[in-house]
Amino acid sequence: MDLWVTEMWTPIMALSCKTKKTIHQEKSEYQEIAVVETEQFGRMLLLDGVIQTTVEDEFIYHEMIAHVPLFAHKNPRNVLVIGGGDGGAIRETVKHPSVDKAVLVEIDERVVEVSKQYLPEISCALDHEKVEVVIDDGIKYVKENKNQFDVVIIDSTDPVGPAEGLFSSDFYRSVYECLREDGIMVAQAESPFFDRKFIRKILSNIGSSFPLTRLYTSFVPTYPGGYWGFALGSKKYDPVEADPARFDKIDTRFYTPEIHKASFVLPKYVSEYLYEK
Amino acid sequence: MDLWVTEMWTPIMALSCKTKKTIHQEKSEYQEIAVVETEQFGRMLLLDGVIQTTVEDEFIYHEMIAHVPLFAHKNPRNVLVIGGGDGGAIRETVKHPSVDKAVLVEIDERVVEVSKQYLPEISCALDHEKVEVVIDDGIKYVKENKNQFDVVIIDSTDPVGPAEGLFSSDFYRSVYECLREDGIMVAQAESPFFDRKFIRKILSNIGSSFPLTRLYTSFVPTYPGGYWGFALGSKKYDPVEADPARFDKIDTRFYTPEIHKASFVLPKYVSEYLYEK
Repeated sequence: MDLWVTEMWTPIMALSCKTKKTIHQEKSEYQEIAVVETEQFGRMLLLDGVIQTTVEDEFIYHEMIAHVPLFAHKNPRNVLVIGGGDGGAIRETVKHPSVDKAVLVEIDERVVEVSKQYLPEISCALDHEKVEVVIDDGIKYVKENKNQFDVVIIDSTDPVGPAEGLFSSDFYRSVYECLREDGIMVAQAESPFFDRKFIRKILSNIGSSFPLTRLYTSFVPTYPGGYWGFALGSKKYDPVEADPARFDKIDTRFYTPEIHKASFVLPKYVSEYLYEK
Repeated sequence: MDLWVTEMWTPIMALSCKTKKTIHQEKSEYQEIAVVETEQFGRMLLLDGVIQTTVEDEFIYHEMIAHVPLFAHKNPRNVLVIGGGDGGAIRETVKHPSVDKAVLVEIDERVVEVSKQYLPEISCALDHEKVEVVIDDGIKYVKENKNQFDVVIIDSTDPVGPAEGLFSSDFYRSVYECLREDGIMVAQAESPFFDRKFIRKILSNIGSSFPLTRLYTSFVPTYPGGYWGFALGSKKYDPVEADPARFDKIDTRFYTPEIHKASFVLPKYVSEYLYEK
């Protein structure tokens, strides 16, 4: 049998990967969770049929969502990850010696459990001594924890269903308030090629609370178009600047201080739809 | 009828696009040429089933393969494009006021004719007064035209079948000789994620003739993994530097002098497999 997993990147475009087998499939309280073994990317986590991460390419997305805000901050000690139940963003976060505590708030406990069981390369830091895993609604959590964090990383699913509220102005206001006075937030922000209006809206929503907003981008092969956006809000620090001295202490496969800077350089058409008119 | 065009990006991964209709299909002396109307990307040109270019995303690839070497050169007057029968690289080339003449050498006349007929947005400069279209073997052409060009752009198909010879050390030696003393060449160089050994080999082959070799990369949504490599060889100029003053005269949608610089910043894993050991 020739078994392929196909994700509809849009209703009119799809990525298909040949699979060896289905490792796990269940319906949790929130979504369908699946882990399949693909030939190209190794194990792949899908939520409601949408590719979240794969063992072969996850380092790119997770390093870029974590290290850019963490290096933009001068001294990140307390970090909050919302979503990201696979543990990839947390794994990168605890690489920073300055981090005392990293809290993961994931609404679906089963995503955490399935990742621990079947994706050990990604979830390996979920039991780290600096990590606290909270099973809760991220929106509720940020409202209840004001002035607590230096960096907030919003590693959510796409803005449909449970994650929709994680892209609103109200939510970003709560994130602003849960950050300390020099805090930085970042949110995964969909495709700069396909989701132009939506990215513009995310940045505008972040900008209604944060004085500094920036989009940075990275290549991610298993996401639509292979190119992904990250929307950043900063209270104080210019996020384009990273401290190269701190980088020497941290082991990465994608991120470098030069990649940090380059990731803020946007193609002309992106700058135009984001910043013009 | 629900009609989809599927390209096998690798034997174990595929991109599929929903199509409205097949515009054209023929078997030329060299390959199968097809133009389909896709819903996501508009008209799409395929050679032997491999996506070459689409109306919606072609500006990215064509601007990046043309403007990076053209701006790296201080005064490009004579430019040679090998392959690129769709005309996209030529269209970008003749935007440079310094260019007196741009020669396109394409082995398959039918690619040129089909592009002229069905892809006018891309092929529109093929009849430009500065452009000469030569139907010939690029390998033969560079051998016969020594010391003639300032920039050579190798816009070939993948390194299987007719284009295989366009990636060899012998061919790059001929390209070196057909360039003037401060000449620059660039070759499309496959995927930095999937074709790691091959990219290393291309750069090494270019380096056997050229004193300066560099890889730069760009996002291209319809190419495997959405991320593409361009291998550059330079006799004299550091290709990372572009002249911003000249840029003001040229209309682009993707390229900027900042994108130029950023495109040479490589992810850590790419630098490692290219330059270490």
